[in-house]
Amino acid sequence: MTGEGASTRWLDGQELDAWLQVARILSWVPAELDARLLREDGITHFEYEVLASLSESADRRLRMSVLAGLANGSLSRLSHVVRRLEQRGWVTRERCPDDRRATYAVLTDDGYAKVVATAPGYVEHVRSLTIDPLDREQIVLLAQIGQRLNDAAGRGGLAGLAGEGRAASTGAADPTD
Amino acid sequence: MTGEGASTRWLDGQELDAWLQVARILSWVPAELDARLLREDGITHFEYEVLASLSESADRRLRMSVLAGLANGSLSRLSHVVRRLEQRGWVTRERCPDDRRATYAVLTDDGYAKVVATAPGYVEHVRSLTIDPLDREQIVLLAQIGQRLNDAAGRGGLAGLAGEGRAASTGAADPTD
Repeated sequence: MTGEGASTRWLDGQELDAWLQVARILSWVPAELDARLLREDGITHFEYEVLASLSESADRRLRMSVLAGLANGSLSRLSHVVRRLEQRGWVTRERCPDDRRATYAVLTDDGYAKVVATAPGYVEHVRSLTIDPLDREQIVLLAQIGQRLNDAAGRGGLAGLAGEGRAASTGAADPTD
Repeated sequence: MTGEGASTRWLDGQELDAWLQVARILSWVPAELDARLLREDGITHFEYEVLASLSESADRRLRMSVLAGLANGSLSRLSHVVRRLEQRGWVTRERCPDDRRATYAVLTDDGYAKVVATAPGYVEHVRSLTIDPLDREQIVLLAQIGQRLNDAAGRGGLAGLAGEGRAASTGAADPTD
């Protein structure tokens, strides 16, 4: 890399270690989550995230533009997925009576039942892949490091949405409260 | 979730924090890396990983079965990608003279030039997304936490392959040494 990369800030040994571990995780965790959900529950990880977010929102509905945060702001990717969820009877779309430009995705009773049936196995899987191997201190540090990276990239706000939207499908809260 | 999930080990607050931050990272980092590489260099992140791994292997070649580690062991996914790289003149495939069942992927001179041209911008991007926002202590902790998760999932060995294969395209080593 001499010459061409003379001004490049190459990674030092510790930085390279961190990046290679992260790159590994990126390469298999999403694939594992998708594979298990598809095999056991017939839905992708992203479809589950959409259903779970709706399941814990007020009136089990969210504006499409807010839900698009789950798809990194891509309304077209979200629309495609919501259309598939509509065809399976789990979601409907409704115009907002107060604002005709706003569309809501609304979870049906069947959709809610799908989340309730899927959540326990999903949480066990998430836990086995990303939580159980760590001690308590590492869990707290991982949250801090992750937040730092998400915030630096301007993605911090979306974690908030996911947190609100998924507390009861991955956490101890009871969604029927 | 009462009833159905009575025996489920739901995530507590700290575990949920950690998972939601990780889930956010999984949702945007791979997409960002792909988007920039496609825009600036016309290749996907996975294609770059294949080329970079070859660039720093002995004789710039690796057995397809070893390279498949990058694709979580999927030889069919790897074959598909290597075929595309062959069409662009960056890789050739060769039978091993000693073992007819073994096939090698071999980086061409054009493929090596592609890695050299792509690496500086790629490393800057990786650094800005995953390294620069962290202090030195967090970088070291992230490597440890990542390794724990990869090892627990039996993916630790593959990080070794990636490390060997990518030292010079993300690190300070000079591949022409």
